[in-house]
Amino acid sequence: MEKKSLGTVIPQDFTFGLTGDDMLLLDCGRKIGPVNIRYETYGKLDDSKSNAILILHALSGNAHVAGCLDGDKTKIGWWDSMVGPGKAFDTDKYFIVSSNVIGGCSGSTGPRSYNPESENVFKIYNMDFPVITISDMVRAQYRLMKHLGIGKWLSLCGGSMGGMQALEWAVSYPEAVASVIPIATTSCLSPQSIAFNWVGRQAIMGDQNWNNGNYNDKVPESGLSIARMLGHITYLSDKSMDEKFGRELQESESYSFDFSHNFKVESYLKHQGEKFVERFDANSYLYISRAMDYFDLSSKHGGSLAAAFSKVRAPFLVLSFSSDWLFPPYESLKIVEALRNNSIDVTYCDIKSIYGHDAFLLEVEVLEKIISDFLKCRYEEVKGI
Amino acid sequence: MEKKSLGTVIPQDFTFGLTGDDMLLLDCGRKIGPVNIRYETYGKLDDSKSNAILILHALSGNAHVAGCLDGDKTKIGWWDSMVGPGKAFDTDKYFIVSSNVIGGCSGSTGPRSYNPESENVFKIYNMDFPVITISDMVRAQYRLMKHLGIGKWLSLCGGSMGGMQALEWAVSYPEAVASVIPIATTSCLSPQSIAFNWVGRQAIMGDQNWNNGNYNDKVPESGLSIARMLGHITYLSDKSMDEKFGRELQESESYSFDFSHNFKVESYLKHQGEKFVERFDANSYLYISRAMDYFDLSSKHGGSLAAAFSKVRAPFLVLSFSSDWLFPPYESLKIVEALRNNSIDVTYCDIKSIYGHDAFLLEVEVLEKIISDFLKCRYEEVKGI
Repeated sequence: MEKKSLGTVIPQDFTFGLTGDDMLLLDCGRKIGPVNIRYETYGKLDDSKSNAILILHALSGNAHVAGCLDGDKTKIGWWDSMVGPGKAFDTDKYFIVSSNVIGGCSGSTGPRSYNPESENVFKIYNMDFPVITISDMVRAQYRLMKHLGIGKWLSLCGGSMGGMQALEWAVSYPEAVASVIPIATTSCLSPQSIAFNWVGRQAIMGDQNWNNGNYNDKVPESGLSIARMLGHITYLSDKSMDEKFGRELQESESYSFDFSHNFKVESYLKHQGEKFVERFDANSYLYISRAMDYFDLSSKHGGSLAAAFSKVRAPFLVLSFSSDWLFPPYESLKIVEALRNNSIDVTYCDIKSIYGHDAFLLEVEVLEKIISDFLKCRYEEVKGI
Repeated sequence: MEKKSLGTVIPQDFTFGLTGDDMLLLDCGRKIGPVNIRYETYGKLDDSKSNAILILHALSGNAHVAGCLDGDKTKIGWWDSMVGPGKAFDTDKYFIVSSNVIGGCSGSTGPRSYNPESENVFKIYNMDFPVITISDMVRAQYRLMKHLGIGKWLSLCGGSMGGMQALEWAVSYPEAVASVIPIATTSCLSPQSIAFNWVGRQAIMGDQNWNNGNYNDKVPESGLSIARMLGHITYLSDKSMDEKFGRELQESESYSFDFSHNFKVESYLKHQGEKFVERFDANSYLYISRAMDYFDLSSKHGGSLAAAFSKVRAPFLVLSFSSDWLFPPYESLKIVEALRNNSIDVTYCDIKSIYGHDAFLLEVEVLEKIISDFLKCRYEEVKGI
């Protein structure tokens, strides 16, 4: 099958919660509204509305999964290699939906949205935005599903924090889920990851420009770029860093004997930090990383992951990567074991890769093969083929 | 043998480089002087001066290895468990020396020392201090050895950056080294570790109080504590963090839904950061971490580690820890292999431990056994027993 690009895509918006009853009740006990969800769709929803797949993004991702925005070929979606005509998520066959999480900064309601509770209508939430959870993100996505007239997802797929949302969907709305593909994820964030998130947030909140979250022209660039650079180290493996950078120097043959970016790996991180600051909001980083900290699927089920999955019947495809030390394979195995304790049909594959956590964006060939086969089976089941 | 505490110890100072000829020539090409070395000694140098052992400290360490300072029992040395009468480094038998590295902030000349080149004698070096290397640190220690009238160390031992110094000693002064014990170290810093150091330094240098290194009353506490907290994550293993903290909350039974230290692991890091700021200097952190970045034992030997060891004859005891991901066992194995290529007598042990890099401070029982046996053999060889 020939793989094609989707071409230009147009982001859409869905707003709900304009009145009290319709507002979104959050895990913290607060209600928010109006809530906007920025989303994109690719392909066509079929007549029986049974070919819809929801793709869920990671910490720094957004709704723009595939194709190019505004006809600008530099604005290609973050998983364009996987989504399009003839690709793993084949838009000739499936109706693909992706939405930006609440708390984000790419169109959906988040800390940089206007706060309707404020007397001054032009006041931004900033730190008055409520602390949200993965479950809150999913609750908002459920509203989007209803809005789109979909009753059940053929599949849900996401890597990293996207995988957390996929798991949460399966547990919170088991009737709305026909299959689940959690990639490089965990059922609860480890203390090591909580620790990295903590350090990243301290860098942002310690930046004088952060100003208790009330920044305007001067954004906390230094703090946000530190958080991002730290994140990047955890997304790579020591082996992939060794292959990619080694101890090579940047633009010099010998040590500079100063504190500028002397090593290639330092230049890389600096560049990643600078790029991130241009596209991401510091307060969103605080809120979304906190949502990840709080994710613990078993917490509402007496600490038992197997109990959390007790109402789940959908088959799972669980994927991990051998060199991923942020969301290590043994975390995926815990999920597999808990699912099997419920006699749920699970396919598990630990993909051999040196790319660490980033592998879920890079190991396209193997992901394409495994995922397209899994989706084909689910599609044929649903269609009775 | 009964183990005893050393009791009160008195730090000493040795100053050299008061005149041009005597100054310390550094790898960067600059000369510095005067240079002070803060050091401590425990036990007695015997008549043949053949029982001297040099203990080398890690990034945040200092010369105070054992006993208590100023008779204050809260000021116990960082390896007191290993050094004292009847202990692994038995002060009834050996003469133990330890010195604070140059670039440090615990007595030896570093960025917070007065800059003699300045017209204003009260001006502190700060960022005018030259960028130093591990080799420079060792060159200064060599002066201390001569000052103490010692011709050859019975052994050199250090963990982490201390291990780098031990390796550098063996290569730079093979005639002055009768045996070497590098623990949890590497022959060159990995790109992953360079990356962590980079992020830590950016946190310090991005702190408004850093002020290009010219801080006085207001020190860059926020940046330095971020660097330290990040360091601490890398010193532990994910498993030891899981055992020590898990996802336990601090002083509350449910999520606080805010950004304060809600998890036990967050409290731990916050506490470590705060403690460190009280005792360590931000500019020293920059200089010492940079020295670690630049450490590459093979760089002056055409990239061959085996060639670097070609003049070495001293037997080695190389130790690593199974869960140390900052200085992983495979880095120690590279050292072992290069030594064996030179037919050097090497004992290697990868100690099974869950404590990560910190294990070199914690796995006292096994270290004591292995090291005391190794030292006993070296002692008997030297004494012809």
